[in-house]
Amino acid sequence: MRVEVINTGTELLLGRVTNTHLGYLAQSLLGLGLRVERQVTVPDGAAIAVAINEAMTRAEIIIVTGGLGPTSDDITRDATAEAFGKKLIFHQEILDGIAEKFAKRKLAMNDLQRPQAMVPEGGVVIENPKGTAPGLIVENEKTVAILLPGPPGELRPMWETAALPWLRQRFADRLAAVHEITLRILGIGETRVQILVEDEVKALGPVEIGYCARPGEVDLRLISPDKDLVEQAAALAREKLGEATYAEGKETMEEVVVRLARKAGKTVATAESCTGGLVANRITNVSHSSEMFCYGWVTYANEAKMTELGVPPEMLEKYGAVSAEVAQAMAEGALRGSGADLAVAVTGIAGPTGGTPEKPVGLVYFALARANGRTQVVERNLSQVRETFKSMASQIALDLLRRALV
Amino acid sequence: MRVEVINTGTELLLGRVTNTHLGYLAQSLLGLGLRVERQVTVPDGAAIAVAINEAMTRAEIIIVTGGLGPTSDDITRDATAEAFGKKLIFHQEILDGIAEKFAKRKLAMNDLQRPQAMVPEGGVVIENPKGTAPGLIVENEKTVAILLPGPPGELRPMWETAALPWLRQRFADRLAAVHEITLRILGIGETRVQILVEDEVKALGPVEIGYCARPGEVDLRLISPDKDLVEQAAALAREKLGEATYAEGKETMEEVVVRLARKAGKTVATAESCTGGLVANRITNVSHSSEMFCYGWVTYANEAKMTELGVPPEMLEKYGAVSAEVAQAMAEGALRGSGADLAVAVTGIAGPTGGTPEKPVGLVYFALARANGRTQVVERNLSQVRETFKSMASQIALDLLRRALV
Repeated sequence: MRVEVINTGTELLLGRVTNTHLGYLAQSLLGLGLRVERQVTVPDGAAIAVAINEAMTRAEIIIVTGGLGPTSDDITRDATAEAFGKKLIFHQEILDGIAEKFAKRKLAMNDLQRPQAMVPEGGVVIENPKGTAPGLIVENEKTVAILLPGPPGELRPMWETAALPWLRQRFADRLAAVHEITLRILGIGETRVQILVEDEVKALGPVEIGYCARPGEVDLRLISPDKDLVEQAAALAREKLGEATYAEGKETMEEVVVRLARKAGKTVATAESCTGGLVANRITNVSHSSEMFCYGWVTYANEAKMTELGVPPEMLEKYGAVSAEVAQAMAEGALRGSGADLAVAVTGIAGPTGGTPEKPVGLVYFALARANGRTQVVERNLSQVRETFKSMASQIALDLLRRALV
Repeated sequence: MRVEVINTGTELLLGRVTNTHLGYLAQSLLGLGLRVERQVTVPDGAAIAVAINEAMTRAEIIIVTGGLGPTSDDITRDATAEAFGKKLIFHQEILDGIAEKFAKRKLAMNDLQRPQAMVPEGGVVIENPKGTAPGLIVENEKTVAILLPGPPGELRPMWETAALPWLRQRFADRLAAVHEITLRILGIGETRVQILVEDEVKALGPVEIGYCARPGEVDLRLISPDKDLVEQAAALAREKLGEATYAEGKETMEEVVVRLARKAGKTVATAESCTGGLVANRITNVSHSSEMFCYGWVTYANEAKMTELGVPPEMLEKYGAVSAEVAQAMAEGALRGSGADLAVAVTGIAGPTGGTPEKPVGLVYFALARANGRTQVVERNLSQVRETFKSMASQIALDLLRRALV
């Protein structure tokens, strides 16, 4: 089945807002075995009608985002009704629902809200718990149009709870269910992952194998209509990749670390130099991280490493702040100071300045100290672009915690 | 002049990669007074030719990204040559350049690279310093097509150093230069900004005024072909908005803070609870922040607030960790412990749990301590979504530093 996406909104074409709808919808549709064949962005106003009419000549499913609001250039509803040859019918209960939302916020509702209560004849109304404009599904013999509001916070819950289940049911006879397992891998390159798994996975049967590489890591994606086959393939890949697989599906490294630490009843502390608080920030992005994260230090200055973490001045003098010795002393100082079960430390040269021939920009040392056990130190040479460097370094620091918690 | 953008790449339609080209090109074109009227994404392969032919019926300038590489589904070059009725001519010097790049990386070049040396007759070649595929400009009586490689790291320098200057010169007689000044404003709502500035700015002359709201802040964009008028309008807006304007153009809050602190020769420390290191992380994203940022504490646990920042246990007991008193004690503790000129502290309830009727999720206290002067404490009630909360809280903390450094 041919799917096309129409994103409306002048702000997209002015470059003020990045289109995140396409990726979100495309990934979700892939779960139904559907691929987006074409996407178009048009400004608010008459161009919306042109795009809908064009898409109807090709597509069986059209998803339109935006243009459902109350102002005069929001014409998605009208243009779709016209293209599908449907009258617009006023629904009092929709307007009542909007009035209720205004009342709750103690605002007066004006007449401009009324168009949002119009529904193309025979159309399905999708409730919008986060905003005023409802979504709509309109259908004729050849094509289905799904109209969703532009704000991602409104679109996403409406898509997941209403539009996607509707599609799944409506085309149950034509959709081949697709099963997908994604393994997220750190520390092994894309081609190495391929060498480790591809031939043996392919020998199991027709599994689609995809690789998506990011700095320092790879997603391995296994897709097939055959659920058992995908699970077999994933089991094989997990075995071949061992501990390098840090997560599956959408779970992030920090979510894994928080989940494992909470499960094990362990607490964690961080001592960061070059990552500047990013490791702590990522951990504390996860709900309930306060149960396992207690202390974090950002010891950017050498003096801070001495006074806060007890790194000896002569060690800094002898080996320099970016050294295995200092990383170890930072982690051990953080463990002592916090009383945590595990402490991770990072010290490196984020650049753009501060590098030398012996210690170039990108050099970084990690240390993991444990309440009972030896401190582990790791040296790596990462990207020379500051933000990529910080991101990669924080990922490796979190991975050390993950491996210690597994 | 009508501009259309064609983004090619199956990965965009699978949702693996987000389209950042459109926003980048759109913002840049706005500087020439050009707006993108339509954007389409098509998969690799034959759909590229369809999209180019369609765009030629409408657009005077077509920008195509991707599909210039060496593999069989990279057909942008061929499809454009055909649509423009141009023969493809082999350029030995392009192939020599590619061979040189392979030699530098000590790789053997294969025959697959050859198509990248083909140029539509009369076309302009844009050198690609970061990759193998050159960009191309092809033109007939009605339309110009600019073909650029897909990787952003290749596209952006080629756009800025070659394609954009070419456009500016080629259409010098038809392009109205557009001047734009954007003010970035924190702590005043969108409608309030409008009330403060719009009427008086409009009274100066025909200035286009745009607002772009984000959680807690607004960008005010002033555009006109008349440079003096834009500058007058900006001067008026600056006066009306006072210190609420924290930056202009693309400068971020953290860049402003680092710039002002370096200029003033002041050092800064942070003490974070609910923001979990985000304030420190944002400061250290800026190059040369090591000159002004020395110490950061992430005191997530109450005990950390006591042992690291000297917050008295009885204060935590009496007022709770989320209180004006504790925020002040944290900031003053950080100032003492670091010896910095300024210290900012944040303590609040990020949620989703931990709120009470008296202290709901979203409540946050900020304190700014100075080496010479009184500590300032601010209470705010922010978003109840964890990541938005952290982002807004970090922005306000940085803004306190900014105001103290101005």
